Amino acid sequence: MIHRERVTPPHHIYPPDEWNYIEKQFTPQYLAMTETIFSTGNGYLGMRGCFEDGTPVVQNGTFINGFYESWPIIYGEDAYGFARTGQTIVNITDSRIIKLYVDDEALYLPRAALLSFDRRLNMKEGTLDREILWETPSGKQVSIKSRRLVSFEHRHVAAIHYEVTLLNASAPVVISSEMACDQSGQTGGDTGDDPRKARGFQHQVLLPQMNYTDNRRIVLCHRTNHSRIMLACGIDHHIDTECPHTHKSECSEDSGQVVFSIDAQPGKPVRLTKFMAYITSGTASSEEVCARAGRALDRSKDDGFGKLLTGQKQYMDDFWKRSDVEIVPDPEKAEKTTVEIAQAIRFNLFHILQASARAEGTGVAAKGLTGQAYEGQYFWDMEIYIMPFLMYTAPRIARNLLIFRYSTLDKARERARELHHKGAMFAWRTINGEEASAYYAAGTAQYHINADIMYALKKYVDVSGDREFLHKYGAEMLVETARFWSDIGFYSDRKGGKFCIHGVTGPDEYTAVVKNNAFTNVMAKENMRYAAMTVESLRNDEPDVFQSLVHKTGLEMSEVKEWTKAADNMYVPYDEETGIHLQDDGFLDREKWDFENTPPEKYPLLLSYHPLDIYRRQVLKQADVVMAMFLHGDKFSLEEKKRNFDYYDPLTTGDSSLSSCIQSIMAAELGYIDKALEYGKYAALMDLADIGGNVKDGCHIASMGGTWMIFPYGFAGMRDYDGRISFKPRIPERWHKLRFPLTIRGQQLVVDINRESATYLLREGSELVIEHEGEEIKLSKGVPVTKKLTYT
Amino acid sequence: MIHRERVTPPHHIYPPDEWNYIEKQFTPQYLAMTETIFSTGNGYLGMRGCFEDGTPVVQNGTFINGFYESWPIIYGEDAYGFARTGQTIVNITDSRIIKLYVDDEALYLPRAALLSFDRRLNMKEGTLDREILWETPSGKQVSIKSRRLVSFEHRHVAAIHYEVTLLNASAPVVISSEMACDQSGQTGGDTGDDPRKARGFQHQVLLPQMNYTDNRRIVLCHRTNHSRIMLACGIDHHIDTECPHTHKSECSEDSGQVVFSIDAQPGKPVRLTKFMAYITSGTASSEEVCARAGRALDRSKDDGFGKLLTGQKQYMDDFWKRSDVEIVPDPEKAEKTTVEIAQAIRFNLFHILQASARAEGTGVAAKGLTGQAYEGQYFWDMEIYIMPFLMYTAPRIARNLLIFRYSTLDKARERARELHHKGAMFAWRTINGEEASAYYAAGTAQYHINADIMYALKKYVDVSGDREFLHKYGAEMLVETARFWSDIGFYSDRKGGKFCIHGVTGPDEYTAVVKNNAFTNVMAKENMRYAAMTVESLRNDEPDVFQSLVHKTGLEMSEVKEWTKAADNMYVPYDEETGIHLQDDGFLDREKWDFENTPPEKYPLLLSYHPLDIYRRQVLKQADVVMAMFLHGDKFSLEEKKRNFDYYDPLTTGDSSLSSCIQSIMAAELGYIDKALEYGKYAALMDLADIGGNVKDGCHIASMGGTWMIFPYGFAGMRDYDGRISFKPRIPERWHKLRFPLTIRGQQLVVDINRESATYLLREGSELVIEHEGEEIKLSKGVPVTKKLTYT
Repeated sequence: MIHRERVTPPHHIYPPDEWNYIEKQFTPQYLAMTETIFSTGNGYLGMRGCFEDGTPVVQNGTFINGFYESWPIIYGEDAYGFARTGQTIVNITDSRIIKLYVDDEALYLPRAALLSFDRRLNMKEGTLDREILWETPSGKQVSIKSRRLVSFEHRHVAAIHYEVTLLNASAPVVISSEMACDQSGQTGGDTGDDPRKARGFQHQVLLPQMNYTDNRRIVLCHRTNHSRIMLACGIDHHIDTECPHTHKSECSEDSGQVVFSIDAQPGKPVRLTKFMAYITSGTASSEEVCARAGRALDRSKDDGFGKLLTGQKQYMDDFWKRSDVEIVPDPEKAEKTTVEIAQAIRFNLFHILQASARAEGTGVAAKGLTGQAYEGQYFWDMEIYIMPFLMYTAPRIARNLLIFRYSTLDKARERARELHHKGAMFAWRTINGEEASAYYAAGTAQYHINADIMYALKKYVDVSGDREFLHKYGAEMLVETARFWSDIGFYSDRKGGKFCIHGVTGPDEYTAVVKNNAFTNVMAKENMRYAAMTVESLRNDEPDVFQSLVHKTGLEMSEVKEWTKAADNMYVPYDEETGIHLQDDGFLDREKWDFENTPPEKYPLLLSYHPLDIYRRQVLKQADVVMAMFLHGDKFSLEEKKRNFDYYDPLTTGDSSLSSCIQSIMAAELGYIDKALEYGKYAALMDLADIGGNVKDGCHIASMGGTWMIFPYGFAGMRDYDGRISFKPRIPERWHKLRFPLTIRGQQLVVDINRESATYLLREGSELVIEHEGEEIKLSKGVPVTKKLTYT
Repeated sequence: MIHRERVTPPHHIYPPDEWNYIEKQFTPQYLAMTETIFSTGNGYLGMRGCFEDGTPVVQNGTFINGFYESWPIIYGEDAYGFARTGQTIVNITDSRIIKLYVDDEALYLPRAALLSFDRRLNMKEGTLDREILWETPSGKQVSIKSRRLVSFEHRHVAAIHYEVTLLNASAPVVISSEMACDQSGQTGGDTGDDPRKARGFQHQVLLPQMNYTDNRRIVLCHRTNHSRIMLACGIDHHIDTECPHTHKSECSEDSGQVVFSIDAQPGKPVRLTKFMAYITSGTASSEEVCARAGRALDRSKDDGFGKLLTGQKQYMDDFWKRSDVEIVPDPEKAEKTTVEIAQAIRFNLFHILQASARAEGTGVAAKGLTGQAYEGQYFWDMEIYIMPFLMYTAPRIARNLLIFRYSTLDKARERARELHHKGAMFAWRTINGEEASAYYAAGTAQYHINADIMYALKKYVDVSGDREFLHKYGAEMLVETARFWSDIGFYSDRKGGKFCIHGVTGPDEYTAVVKNNAFTNVMAKENMRYAAMTVESLRNDEPDVFQSLVHKTGLEMSEVKEWTKAADNMYVPYDEETGIHLQDDGFLDREKWDFENTPPEKYPLLLSYHPLDIYRRQVLKQADVVMAMFLHGDKFSLEEKKRNFDYYDPLTTGDSSLSSCIQSIMAAELGYIDKALEYGKYAALMDLADIGGNVKDGCHIASMGGTWMIFPYGFAGMRDYDGRISFKPRIPERWHKLRFPLTIRGQQLVVDINRESATYLLREGSELVIEHEGEEIKLSKGVPVTKKLTYT
């Protein structure tokens, strides 16, 4: 159910541009929001879209994925096994600043007379572009064009090309290119009462280590105080102009500036390129990270902005070829929402790319690199919401993320030992692998994280065919998670001897610490089943791999039997009378939430009601049983799905941004196309229309991944149980066409759907078997197959 | 079930003295424990039993009831409605220090050659007495006798009488009487991981306001930093000796000393009396509190130690007359345990007195004034465990405590409003009335606190007959708590339309946030029922009081109907198959705790297992259903009680010190006399034998109150439903006699039980109707009635 109509009126142009998200005027009232939306990043380095100029900044932010500070979690009342060490992504040295002075008048957007203004997130080329025409108080017209990019090719490098041209007069021009490491407000201001925002630090986080200037270059080096990670940030410059100019560089511990003074002449552009390099290391010395930053600057400067830009374009071309989802509105029925969604889907995919592309050795944070909310930590979002897109468009990135999880396996084993459980417990929220959840009821109790990771692992192996990954990393994780599940549950006489799991919290955080959360039990069952299957198949087919696995895990085959037995006997709560699966044992016993007397401003409920008040009622933050029915749809009949959806949907507030996309997909499966579209709109416009009212704190990357899923899984009706790809498309009337590519076991499938038929083309590869509405189709490269759609 | 045999071997003499708790040698290994046990206090002011001399102190502590510092509760992950302000009792200026030097040799107990040693808590006279004979390295023998008291008569005053006599030589003697306000380690050292201990402060708590010396007097004044309460502590001295002497006084912001130098001669005692006065105020100026401390010192000094001592003795005589519980062992079967219990019961009663006697305008803290554990806060202990003793021996104190709760009613109303509930929510833990629980699952969720207070209120009115209290304070609290219950529950179709209460935690904190906790529902039912009854009776019989109540609460009679309806329809979970009441809806669905594989050192479980692990199993920290069967025994049949007890007892760890006493009482009711005695022993010796291993952190005042209850309620089988007093005594074979007085509606009943019969004597009053084994007995003053006992 959608309880709110919170869509902020778009303040940008209409109709939207296909490939650019464009802002045609300076709108200070939306500054915090546009800082998020115009963020640039590459999955390693991210910069919020603050203007270069000395314009007011609401939430500044430059982030490196996994660059965090740790802090001891303090509990008013402590208990055994509570998480000990919080981790928060650090807002690091800001290198974007370029201040412009003409006739000693500063360009200050809120007060500047702007004859024209155009800022655009250029999703085709991967840049943030701005063109403005400024008339100074004395009537001099100044054209300022800038392009900013965070390089996908060179993940440590970013650059700004800044071009200033006086149009109608001469004037002394000063361009001050600056960098600053701000020690105040590490989390971008007061967090207020919103638990989703990052906490502030009580101590100085970045300790200066060294700094130097060298001609037009400045390098600042800091180290985090507690987590002891080294950071070097360097800037260097190339200036190209016919106008006479000089420069001067200086720096201190926490700041630096290179000031160019130019006698600018009309019509003669001043072109400044600012190269930025960021290096971090948990082991290297300050000298070493500074030297590495210097080398990255050397290389970038040698290449020049042009080459960086070319590389960026190539990367983007490749990305869109693998990933683009095209919606073509019916030209006769073209209306605003569809056009907006068509743009929004690209915006969403572009931001997933920016959050994940070069995330090597780290995860993908809930907000990507666009904000510090949720502390920059990694959650289940990554596996369940973001990875499907990656698996089907960039399996290498999906693999890297799974390897990151593998790198935390020892910490997960340690955590399990601490809590007297067998196997491994992956952290519900973390940066460095240690559990960082300070509220166990919606943290440690979300054991489903274990099964979520294994679900993604299986899907990755199924979709990519990468069995080497399974052998090298996957099997070990499967063994340890299956062990955990088999240990934490028990066979209950009161449930006919079934295997029950108590004291857990499912994805829906509006109930907590329950018995037999259906989602968790279904996921745990499949986790154990797949683990047993994997072990058996290794034992039979890969004796060396099997031996090594036994060696690494001390596995005994009796354990594998235990997993199978538990999986076969897993209890999934079901109510005979209503014919629905219960979110948890006692779900129906709860009082229903009084939606009628809950005014819109009380949403999200978590900001207006005590957890106890929420927990004791039938009310959902997000799809939970519905989610299980999506992830393991082959375990539920269509009638069950319908009954469950019909029961839970009206109880679902969608207070979580993870909700709408899943509701949309399941609505589509059930033939509720209007509802699917409505939920789809909410998911797709989550950030551009600021549905949650908190875009200022960062993009909702999981919802973005979910938005992608809406198209293949929702409207194209794709399912991929055990890697078998099937479709049952049904697209809204107002759409003319839906088109998207999928990478499947190294081959590339293009799916092209209109209202009447679907065409499947194997663009790359040799042969692929898929299913369309239950009919098997064998595709050969280059031969499109078209099939009619049945709307039942 | 008793899982542990943790009784620390008593290091004191045997057989125990009837009226003194005696230590016959200096035992540094038990220092922290004996500092607690030898504490002195009067309910307003408390001093841990640290030695006067410069002997090592493990946990120093001087406390004033309700004198607290507040601190913001920080949550790693915050949420709406979480408690905001912690409150912790402050370790204040220590005035007990008296250092002794003979020939410039310091008396330092760990190194001193002690020819004799005797320290005793003199429970007959209310003093802490010590006599030692010290031989200095040069062979001089020094007799040192001291008596310390915290006055019951003058609650702001304490005194130490310190007498030094050289026996066999002359020597220069220096007595340095000191005071110190220690700013470090406000909570007595590191709290480690034990959540029951007080947290440390991060800031300086006591800010110096003023200080002065005046002859042999010193006054130091401080103010708490955040809560802004003023404290003056003054000392003054009287010296009495034939030996020549001089003195010198000096003080600084946080310390002061008066140093007496004496030419001591053999056989001539030096008698020093140190008077101490403590004044606190939330409104007065530093000058004013200092002046008040000065006046208290003037008066004490004028009276002298003798008069203080006489007052103390009189108070104690009166106390024991009203309160003493005598157990006389069967002389033929006299064995250690019984003798120890006989002493322990006096020790327990004496400490309840020390925790509560002059608690005026405050509550009684979990540890009384013997330690900072549990932050010095007030819990339900006060009403359910401590107040029964007070109601039956000192109703005025019980009344004061209830009036303290009344003084927090407005804050309770505010808290209810904040959480969108009607009526009032009393704080689960607090000093100033504001909720201070930083862990809502075992805090705010323990709504039963509301009903607990109302239970005590009803019992107080029934036992004291004080209807004026009911009119002036009680009715208003009843209305607001009944409102709360009626608001928080709902009528559930799935429970046959019964009134259910979800999302609560009962007294047993080993399950949390459950549906229909039986204890809570039974208590809430009676809360509403009594509220409705009271309102109806006021409306009929006391129209003015009724009008005033309506005026104060905006009461409407339709509400009263709602309460009655909810009470009449209250759901109490019951399992038909086993015939037991369920601690909560899903209790039987849980896996049983694996006691067999839980080694003794893992108790208490809360220090070794994550809450989730405990919550998901059938395991109890303390009696819960069993508790309900005690408090509302007339609502359960004997068969039900037996089945419930038999089911829950083996699951009850007794990890809470509140458990054993209730198990003992119910065991007695069910005729399990051995078990009753065994549990009784654990309750009675909780502190003296350090059952919980944490006596060092303070006395278990609630268990002490529970220990008292074991005798009238357990072995004498007293029940007092609606104020009707009945007995069904059954005492253990090895006891010869059990004898105790009870104050009932202003009259005094003495109950005297031996193995064969019970004798009831109305010592004061005119007429009292009681019941013995179902037979009604009308007692007249001074006429004992003896009845045979039936052991069925």
